[in-house]
Amino acid sequence: MNYKRIGIVGGVAPPSTVLYYQQIIEGFQGRLGRDHYPELVIHSLDMGEINQYFNKEDHDALSDKLVQVIDGLSGAGCDFALFACNAMHMVFDRVRQRVQVPMVSLIQAVLEEVHLRQLKSVGLMGTTFVMQGGIYRNPLEESGIKCLLPDEEEQAWIMEVILRDLQLPDIPEETVTRLLKNVERLSEKGADGVILACTDLPVAITEEMSPTPLLDSTKIHVKATLDYALGEVQ
Amino acid sequence: MNYKRIGIVGGVAPPSTVLYYQQIIEGFQGRLGRDHYPELVIHSLDMGEINQYFNKEDHDALSDKLVQVIDGLSGAGCDFALFACNAMHMVFDRVRQRVQVPMVSLIQAVLEEVHLRQLKSVGLMGTTFVMQGGIYRNPLEESGIKCLLPDEEEQAWIMEVILRDLQLPDIPEETVTRLLKNVERLSEKGADGVILACTDLPVAITEEMSPTPLLDSTKIHVKATLDYALGEVQ
Repeated sequence: MNYKRIGIVGGVAPPSTVLYYQQIIEGFQGRLGRDHYPELVIHSLDMGEINQYFNKEDHDALSDKLVQVIDGLSGAGCDFALFACNAMHMVFDRVRQRVQVPMVSLIQAVLEEVHLRQLKSVGLMGTTFVMQGGIYRNPLEESGIKCLLPDEEEQAWIMEVILRDLQLPDIPEETVTRLLKNVERLSEKGADGVILACTDLPVAITEEMSPTPLLDSTKIHVKATLDYALGEVQ
Repeated sequence: MNYKRIGIVGGVAPPSTVLYYQQIIEGFQGRLGRDHYPELVIHSLDMGEINQYFNKEDHDALSDKLVQVIDGLSGAGCDFALFACNAMHMVFDRVRQRVQVPMVSLIQAVLEEVHLRQLKSVGLMGTTFVMQGGIYRNPLEESGIKCLLPDEEEQAWIMEVILRDLQLPDIPEETVTRLLKNVERLSEKGADGVILACTDLPVAITEEMSPTPLLDSTKIHVKATLDYALGEVQ
């Protein structure tokens, strides 16, 4: 069986890395059959260390770390790599330029999905780094697509629950309800769809739970990854 | 924070690799605190390829593959490695001699637990490779501990469900019941405890479900791994 070996930079956070692993295997088997298991490598990072780089905006140290990790994945036989985390994409271009293997971008995959669905105005929920930064906003606005955010207070709350509740084995029901309420408000503000722009969010809320279309960044990234690994997309 | 970086040879099968990952992170946080995440690397193998080596008893090819994988983990910064699978331990000694990093043996950890619990007669449930081979039986019998197996028909059925039902997202209730029935029969034959000698079995049955003491090889191996990673045991 011919496929490119996937290298996953994960651990930020662990539950979403499990989702990636499970969805990649399910997707692989869905395309090739039940007996097929992809060989792949996951480098699970120390989330505490990575959050320090984010908080200090130390993109140099973050990039150095990620380059080293991807070199290790490449040494372990991976043909390409991906960040199983939205926020890490702040340094995607810098890292990509310094590594030997190709990388599949989550942001690019989600943007392609936004265009495919012909959305004119999208809501964005994720860590504050992602909501307040430009990784989605800039390319969206350049394409004439509006980018809407939750109220400031809710942004702070979303950040808090990503770091706290979404790491728990059982997510409190109030948290799920309030996350869905935020989706609803973004829809009332005019969003045609809402990007779950943190790979931890689908641990709590899924497309089926919301009348407003949700763009699950984990699912979209996994699909792009399998397309690339199986050579269906160049 | 000072700890040895863990390299996991996993994917045989994926659900048990997820258990290892989750239990290692939980155990790490249980010992060091909620904010601590271990950096680690998982090389998830193609289970189809590995099962072919098992079926053909091609221990040379299996060893070559595993040496290559552990060298990759070591190159990715891992300080030691482990097989997240009982059956792979058939080649543990051969592989250990050929790699640069130390390895933590699941079999040794389980045997120590058998001695610690002062069991005189243990049941063994796992793949046919493990039940019919000597990786547990030989060291147990050398220590004067009886090693009891399920009836032959049940052995074949256990092998079947490990490969089929235990890989499903929802495990059929009849499968769980019949696995527990096997534990009960081993206990009736005189077993003081039963070794769940396949890392996939705890996906279906856990210690809490059985009046007969179960030795969960995944849990025991994870504990030994954390002891080693955190330097509590030499």
